[in-house]
Amino acid sequence: MGRSMIKRLLNRLFTAAVVLLAAAAAPAQKRALVAVPDLPGYKTLKCDFHLHTVFSDGEVWPTTRVMEAWRDGLDAIAITDHDDYHPHKDDVSVNLARVHQIALPAAERAGILLVPGVEISKGDIHFNALFVTDANAFTGLDLTSALTAAKKQGAFLFWNHPGWRGPTVWQPVIEAAHKDGMVHGVELVNGRTFYAEAFPWIGPKKLAILANTDAHAPLPAEQRLGQRPVTLVFARSADLEGIREALTARRTVAWMDDHLWGSAELLKGLWEGAVKPLTAEARLEGRIVRLPFRNGSSIPFEAQLVGKPTWLTGKGTIHPQSESVLALRAGPVPPGGEEAATVELEITNLHPAPGENLRLTLPVRIAARK
Amino acid sequence: MGRSMIKRLLNRLFTAAVVLLAAAAAPAQKRALVAVPDLPGYKTLKCDFHLHTVFSDGEVWPTTRVMEAWRDGLDAIAITDHDDYHPHKDDVSVNLARVHQIALPAAERAGILLVPGVEISKGDIHFNALFVTDANAFTGLDLTSALTAAKKQGAFLFWNHPGWRGPTVWQPVIEAAHKDGMVHGVELVNGRTFYAEAFPWIGPKKLAILANTDAHAPLPAEQRLGQRPVTLVFARSADLEGIREALTARRTVAWMDDHLWGSAELLKGLWEGAVKPLTAEARLEGRIVRLPFRNGSSIPFEAQLVGKPTWLTGKGTIHPQSESVLALRAGPVPPGGEEAATVELEITNLHPAPGENLRLTLPVRIAARK
Amino acid sequence: MGRSMIKRLLNRLFTAAVVLLAAAAAPAQKRALVAVPDLPGYKTLKCDFHLHTVFSDGEVWPTTRVMEAWRDGLDAIAITDHDDYHPHKDDVSVNLARVHQIALPAAERAGILLVPGVEISKGDIHFNALFVTDANAFTGLDLTSALTAAKKQGAFLFWNHPGWRGPTVWQPVIEAAHKDGMVHGVELVNGRTFYAEAFPWIGPKKLAILANTDAHAPLPAEQRLGQRPVTLVFARSADLEGIREALTARRTVAWMDDHLWGSAELLKGLWEGAVKPLTAEARLEGRIVRLPFRNGSSIPFEAQLVGKPTWLTGKGTIHPQSESVLALRAGPVPPGGEEAATVELEITNLHPAPGENLRLTLPVRIAARK
Amino acid sequence: MGRSMIKRLLNRLFTAAVVLLAAAAAPAQKRALVAVPDLPGYKTLKCDFHLHTVFSDGEVWPTTRVMEAWRDGLDAIAITDHDDYHPHKDDVSVNLARVHQIALPAAERAGILLVPGVEISKGDIHFNALFVTDANAFTGLDLTSALTAAKKQGAFLFWNHPGWRGPTVWQPVIEAAHKDGMVHGVELVNGRTFYAEAFPWIGPKKLAILANTDAHAPLPAEQRLGQRPVTLVFARSADLEGIREALTARRTVAWMDDHLWGSAELLKGLWEGAVKPLTAEARLEGRIVRLPFRNGSSIPFEAQLVGKPTWLTGKGTIHPQSESVLALRAGPVPPGGEEAATVELEITNLHPAPGENLRLTLPVRIAARK
Repeated sequence: MGRSMIKRLLNRLFTAAVVLLAAAAAPAQKRALVAVPDLPGYKTLKCDFHLHTVFSDGEVWPTTRVMEAWRDGLDAIAITDHDDYHPHKDDVSVNLARVHQIALPAAERAGILLVPGVEISKGDIHFNALFVTDANAFTGLDLTSALTAAKKQGAFLFWNHPGWRGPTVWQPVIEAAHKDGMVHGVELVNGRTFYAEAFPWIGPKKLAILANTDAHAPLPAEQRLGQRPVTLVFARSADLEGIREALTARRTVAWMDDHLWGSAELLKGLWEGAVKPLTAEARLEGRIVRLPFRNGSSIPFEAQLVGKPTWLTGKGTIHPQSESVLALRAGPVPPGGEEAATVELEITNLHPAPGENLRLTLPVRIAARK
Repeated sequence: MGRSMIKRLLNRLFTAAVVLLAAAAAPAQKRALVAVPDLPGYKTLKCDFHLHTVFSDGEVWPTTRVMEAWRDGLDAIAITDHDDYHPHKDDVSVNLARVHQIALPAAERAGILLVPGVEISKGDIHFNALFVTDANAFTGLDLTSALTAAKKQGAFLFWNHPGWRGPTVWQPVIEAAHKDGMVHGVELVNGRTFYAEAFPWIGPKKLAILANTDAHAPLPAEQRLGQRPVTLVFARSADLEGIREALTARRTVAWMDDHLWGSAELLKGLWEGAVKPLTAEARLEGRIVRLPFRNGSSIPFEAQLVGKPTWLTGKGTIHPQSESVLALRAGPVPPGGEEAATVELEITNLHPAPGENLRLTLPVRIAARK
Repeated sequence: MGRSMIKRLLNRLFTAAVVLLAAAAAPAQKRALVAVPDLPGYKTLKCDFHLHTVFSDGEVWPTTRVMEAWRDGLDAIAITDHDDYHPHKDDVSVNLARVHQIALPAAERAGILLVPGVEISKGDIHFNALFVTDANAFTGLDLTSALTAAKKQGAFLFWNHPGWRGPTVWQPVIEAAHKDGMVHGVELVNGRTFYAEAFPWIGPKKLAILANTDAHAPLPAEQRLGQRPVTLVFARSADLEGIREALTARRTVAWMDDHLWGSAELLKGLWEGAVKPLTAEARLEGRIVRLPFRNGSSIPFEAQLVGKPTWLTGKGTIHPQSESVLALRAGPVPPGGEEAATVELEITNLHPAPGENLRLTLPVRIAARK
Repeated sequence: MGRSMIKRLLNRLFTAAVVLLAAAAAPAQKRALVAVPDLPGYKTLKCDFHLHTVFSDGEVWPTTRVMEAWRDGLDAIAITDHDDYHPHKDDVSVNLARVHQIALPAAERAGILLVPGVEISKGDIHFNALFVTDANAFTGLDLTSALTAAKKQGAFLFWNHPGWRGPTVWQPVIEAAHKDGMVHGVELVNGRTFYAEAFPWIGPKKLAILANTDAHAPLPAEQRLGQRPVTLVFARSADLEGIREALTARRTVAWMDDHLWGSAELLKGLWEGAVKPLTAEARLEGRIVRLPFRNGSSIPFEAQLVGKPTWLTGKGTIHPQSESVLALRAGPVPPGGEEAATVELEITNLHPAPGENLRLTLPVRIAARK
């Protein structure tokens, strides 16, 4: 056995050993099972499409983003380092292709879908380009040139944190890019920030809704999904093409801090997949009507009675992975023998449009006391 | 409208109002969904058959025990106040029939099965009698007379905390009662205490295993099931008769502090209903073989490789409602081209017999590195 | 030794034994050290003056309220069962004097001050009477007669949940009682409810501010003080007379859900006793000025820069028992060489008057970048 | 204004902006106040002297280790990347001097003492060298040469994870280095592993005790100190020279997972600074004697009665930052009129020597029941 062979063997053993050491120091190898229902015909993928590493101004190695995603129960991520901002360049390579190369084996092992990406960062305006084929192609270009180059690569393009360092306004340069088919989505949620002023753009401009962490520091383990911002993608298949098709078709929901933003159809689908009323009939007891629900999902629903029946009021949380009782109260003068055949609810943390909450009509018969 | 009618009306309104007030001050109305798999042919019921109230030496009203059970995800309870110990008797009725009468409407509303019960408390020896028809029949009797009376009522009888105020020994009075068919089970777990010396009695004496809280104080909301001791009952039907039949047939498992005690058959059934290996093949990478599992249940499983393959070692937790990776390590001299067709595990927190852990053989093929 | 002597001995032993059993089942015997600073000349006592037991419509035994208070770090409580509402009267004594008699030995052992009290409950209007000498004297009386009787006993009287079952308005019957010196305080906070409309009454009507749980159910162990509503009483001495004098002198602060309501003087005293700025000088770095604080107390402070320096903005939490950094941001056009000699903050969770936050001027010199 | 000036200005603004972005995405800026008492004449510093970054096989940027230390309440750290193991060398500089240069400004701003360090990594044997002046001097050397070079730099040298990849034995190469004054300490604790076999070496070989995380991955935010392994250093001054002097004088304690290892004198000092018995006299009530303690520190103490008084038994946790009651139980035959003038305790989680617990004699007088 030659010297170099021995060296290779030792090196290999050593690598394994150091991996062991790292494993020993690492937190528990545990992936949260986050229960978000699939919709008919679609698989619901939990995604974060905006993450940084030491290759631009982030603080972690690319594989760490994969490990965090696995731990937190995500299905897909994109690591999107800045094209034109490299504060670590004295010590770390600026070759952004390396980010994907380094993260990919870890992603494959963990079963995390890794979308190739980059953050096109020009002045105050940043776009994420997903599904890029050459992450290094945008360095030094101006915004429009970079977007054009990304479009040529077939990228899905969305505007990041649209009110960063200024008001959230639809600017001329954005309008021009949009006309040229280079604005396919927008981050309604970036980190802990919800960009309310961007919500009215979604419909008219036909944008996909995104919610991403934009994490630079390590992501804390104690945050469950929904506290960690997440883009729900409703895909025909759980692969990169499925994600691309769903993004292009705008089948996404933003979820952050127990609020969800998306189309009424998608939000209603989530409710129906998650919550089951446990009774079809309820009666007034004292001045209270109790409606029990079973929520098998990880999403909380804030329910409020609106409108019907008119003689009841009430609201409450339909807690995740729990049974919850919504207690409705009769007014000071309880009704005589009236009945109600349906209950109308608003889900005040599910937002199909600016200033609107999801409305539902439940076929629950309520009997007033004789 | 007569004076008494007004009074009744006011009283009714007032009652409702005070209920409202109580509701406002109460903790969230939320029932945990505790995921314990059913076994083929059996519904798994989560039960606590030993609870106290102010009617003996407990600190809470009977309905509170129902509310706690609902909140914690239990399916059935028995409230078992002492027959002969009434420290609150200057202020509270000693009529034990009242306990069941008071708790029953709350139990029916909450969907909790309420087993009529009493704690026959004679000196240091206490028995719980379940399914009694007259809870007041045992006051003032000696132990044997009380058990005889309970047997006449058709009660299921189990010995509580068998090492309380003395060593855990099978005493003559117990032996005599057992011979007369008046000892059907024993608490292996009472509160935080596991009675190890009682475990060897289970098989030879054909006893059902019980695990109960014996709560006197309010039960803390932050404890999940399994931290709160619980008896798992594998019933043909989710009703009182189903519970009685299962107890009599000894189809129970004790669960406390992430340990479970029961027959190998029942424990294996829980494992199979809860855990799914996510791979049928694994390979050595570095010096590590990674086996991923998906555990959809609320039970953690502590897995340890034993025996096969001989060139690997390792252990780890298969966390509840998570995916977990069991990392196995090759010894310092990794094997050449050997393969293994199965993996043998002990689940070190599942105990089918004294000093034994559940053993499993998984059909996972492990390829060593070429 | 006679038969009765033996019986007494056995009884005594048995009592001890059952106590042991209860102890074993009980949660950990641990009292939280809640850090609330004393003010110059005053001891800060943490109090809950509105608690129920099975003697009216509550769910727990009187000693349980003492144990909860000890566990949660309170210094004083009043157990205030309803005079005229006894839904458990078929099973539990209606003699309210018993509540105090039963709780007192436990309170003395635990070092909890127990204020004798009762809830005078007449229709929709409820008052708590503290320091009563005969808790049974109010049963069957109308409101005015009951308050008059309480005043004769020297009671401190406050109006409970002033908007319960109706709007929060200063009613004629309250006005009349107030004129007669029978309304000394009001619950701004009852349970999770803050009665905003009552806050403007505090000054003009010279009322003491109260915050109480009004607990009927067991109080959950996982709630820290401040989440559990609490009345802070600034007393000359840590005894019943100290509490009475402080209540009469209106030296109280309400604390619920991380908000505090009280006079500017008392709130400022809490800030000064709790928080220490860790720097007297700060400088602009990038566009950020970082102000570090050390908060040794259990109270969080939500700080927001207001007004000065004009070229900075920012807010943040000064976390309990932590060091926190308040990050202030310079506007898009950073100043040249300006300096600021002070920083003006609002503490947005400390409320000295309706619609107002506590304002503070800190002597921190801020240097802009050259 | 010239083009380069504009560029510099833009660059500066941009830097600030990206910092803002990072700040927005970062977890709360909060430093835990970890209460560990100082000892007479010594300041107690909480330290972690074994941390990795992307400059060897770690996953984070050097400043992240500083931020984690600040967040977790540490006073000092050493970042100790491997000299001879650089799996990221295709993308990251191998100049270890850069690690300190990058971390230092962040450490100075945060008030964290940064000890220059490196991990001398030769085969299975790794040493940490603290206070090195040239971290790059050891690359390619064998173990003895590297230790010799470190000694010349004036380094403090300790053996890391002494049973890693083999049994924990005092090997010839270690013995030789020790004779030459190049082994000053040993990690009794590395990550979650306690090296029991190394504990007997501490006294005879005059080694300092170390406990370090050896973190490669990001450190989880939810772990409090003591769960995160930490070396307590009892220093004459809170600066680098103070740390060096204390390490050399072996005034250290290891703290991991609520166990502490160190000399009896230091452990006793921690107890005395942390815990105050709240009574000098106790009496038998029922069969229980209750001893209350106030523990103002963040360290839990597991107390067990040993030996005296002989007629009592018991154990319990003296919880951190709490008041706790130690409940001692009299045997089945309570004593007549005996008294005890002292209580002898073992603190079963404080270990002054292998197989030994700290023993304490408390001057508490216990009166038996008449």
